[in-house]
Parts: sequence; C-alpha cells; structure tokens
Amino acid sequence: MIPTITAFERSPDGGKGLARDTRVRWALEEAGQPYRVRPVSFAAMKEPAHMALHPFGQIPTYEEGDLVLFESGAIIFHIASRHAGLLPEEPNARARVITWMFAALNTVEPPILDLSTARIMEADKPWAEERLPLVADRVRHRLSQLSARLGDAEWLDGAFSAADLTMVSVLLRTRPSGILNEFPNLAAYVARGEARPAYQRAFAAQWAFNTGQPQAG
Amino acid sequence: MIPTITAFERSPDGGKGLARDTRVRWALEEAGQPYRVRPVSFAAMKEPAHMALHPFGQIPTYEEGDLVLFESGAIIFHIASRHAGLLPEEPNARARVITWMFAALNTVEPPILDLSTARIMEADKPWAEERLPLVADRVRHRLSQLSARLGDAEWLDGAFSAADLTMVSVLLRTRPSGILNEFPNLAAYVARGEARPAYQRAFAAQWAFNTGQPQAG
Repeated sequence: MIPTITAFERSPDGGKGLARDTRVRWALEEAGQPYRVRPVSFAAMKEPAHMALHPFGQIPTYEEGDLVLFESGAIIFHIASRHAGLLPEEPNARARVITWMFAALNTVEPPILDLSTARIMEADKPWAEERLPLVADRVRHRLSQLSARLGDAEWLDGAFSAADLTMVSVLLRTRPSGILNEFPNLAAYVARGEARPAYQRAFAAQWAFNTGQPQAG
Repeated sequence: MIPTITAFERSPDGGKGLARDTRVRWALEEAGQPYRVRPVSFAAMKEPAHMALHPFGQIPTYEEGDLVLFESGAIIFHIASRHAGLLPEEPNARARVITWMFAALNTVEPPILDLSTARIMEADKPWAEERLPLVADRVRHRLSQLSARLGDAEWLDGAFSAADLTMVSVLLRTRPSGILNEFPNLAAYVARGEARPAYQRAFAAQWAFNTGQPQAG
C-alpha cells in the first residue's frame, strides 16, 4: 500500500528543504518506499478535514490504509520500524538511536525554532533586535554540546540511522543564520547527510513540488 | 537488573513533580519496575562524568547494565517497549501512541518551556512584561487544539498509555500559570493522570527525595 503524505501547497521556504515533509520524504527514500504527496494550502490546514488528520493543523501527515499519523518524528519512526536500514536490530543500539531522535526534536530543535520565531514572528516587536543575540546564543549552547559529543565520528551512534536523519534535518535549519558553520564538525556532518542519494532524491522531489521545476544541476 | 536514574540533587521546583525525573519514575511505576536514583548537583551535571552519560548536561539519565540512555521521552519509550501496560500491541494503535508521545514533546511542550523561559530566565529583561502575554497565547493556542481533539475522551487514544503519561506530564507544567484551568477537559484529563496509583507513588518518591520528608497526607 502506497502511503500519502501532506506538504505545504506553497512552502514558506520556497523549496529549500526546510519544511518538515522533507524529513519524511528522506525517510521514505532511505527505505526505498514509493509515496504520494497531497498539497495542503494554509487555509485548508485549519479546516476540519485536515484537522481530523492533524490535531495541530500542520504538515506532514501520513496516511496508509486505515492508519493516520502526524508529527514528523513519529512518521520517521514508523517508517524506520517497518523497513530495514534506519534502526539497528540490536536492542540497546536501537534504544540509543531512538534516544537521539527524541534529543533532536525535544532538546536541539526547540531553541532553533525559537530563533526562527524571534527572527520572523517577532521581527516587528520593539525588543526584536536586543533579544535576538540571546536566542541565538541558546542555539550555540546546544550546538556546542552536540559538537563536543559528535567529535570526529561520522554519525551519532554507529552506522547512519534515523537518529542522523532527524538530527541533520534539525541542524539544516541553523544554516540560514550562519550558526551551523561556526561548528565545522557539525557542518561536515550535515553535509554527509545531504550527500546521501536518498536525501538528494527527497530534496529534488520537494524542490520540484514547490517550484514546478526540476532542480538545476 | 535494577536501572539507575539521575535526578536533581535539589530540584528547582522543590519536589512539585515538574522535574523530568518524575515522568520516568511514573513510567517505571506503571511498569512495576524497581529503580535506583542517583542525585546530581547543578555543578556535577556539567562535569565530564555526567556529560558522558548526557551530552546536554541534564537529568534524567537511565543506566541499565551497559545501556545508557538520556532524554526522558526516549527513556519512557524504552520502559514502555520492554514492559507491558504502556504501549498497545496492535501495530497501528502502537504507532498512534508513539505519534502522541512525539506530539507532546515536539509540539505541545516547546511553547510551554518558552513560557517558563520568559517568566524566569528573561524576567529581568526590559521586554519581559510586554512579551509575556504573546508567549502565553502560544501555549493557549496549542492547548485549545489539544482540548478540541480530546473532547470528552478519557485518554488520547483508547486505554491509558505512554502517550497520556507523556502528555499529562507536559501539561502539568502549565498549571502554575493558570492556563491549564482555562481548559476544563484538559484539567480533568491531567487530574485523571495524577489519580493513577503509579503517579501517586512516583510523586511521593520524588517529593521525599527532594524534601527529605514523607508527603503530607
């Protein structure tokens, strides 16, 4: 059964791969699974039909027969659980990979999203300029800890896994601010993720979906 | 093998159950598993011995033989995976419960933590008073969506599960602000969670650990 995911009809990033459907596309590509994509407009995201699929009115969702999932971390985990290649078989290694998935989403991503909020949603507020460095430093603090742990390892725990797919996707959001490049080992780690053929296919697909154009070579 | 978790030597909440070790204690109590607790001071949390267990220098951690985990969501998931009672067996129901765990931690908790940050860490900033209502309204927005989805159901998806354990733990953090009580069905949902004997045991244990006193009856 071919699953259907949802994606922004017009992504705020215009196809730069930062919307959360890219993470799910990447997981599906790593798993070698075909999928369909249904676009959802900003207006439709808040309507009952979509809210029935996603209680918080966001994308992506994941529909596979009777199963409806939302929340990209959970969708990645679902794909990783049902197909080989993204979760180790050995139980302790598997538990560690899942730990890193939660860490990416609950510890590393929140300050990164705060920075986007400060830059975009609060850009017109009187405190915007003074507060921004404080928020950026919280991102740096987390990234410095992650950088220290990663060291010169290729991936977070052994072979490439759903942990890296999730963490690289989260870290990609720090590139526009320039903060990612302050940590050379993290920048190289993200580049290794982006170099994977499955990421390339996922990026190209979301680019074409958003722009109506094939990716420039 | 009896696992060891870490907890604040002196919790910032003084034992009100809001530190993240309470979630893990609750999961262990639901699973009927004994555990040990090792206190960690704020200074020791940033030292190499603890950073080797937890790359972000936080609590709780979870040690079980050779296995070391961090990130409370991942620890709850680990406990739920290895013991009966917190995850449904049926694969689709299981995937939905995992979705709610990620939703609690990646979608509902971040604005709640932002409110704590605004109230405490940014309390002395010139923008504090003007910005606070904006941050509180982001919490209300998420809680209104969650309230609409929960409706008059007892738990998020069928029987009580790790989804509810995680979501109730996250929502508890909105009670001091008064926001939780603006949503009667969510307040009642949290109260149902707190009424569970396993929660009561977890709360009493962390209270005694933090205060050196048994809980008043």
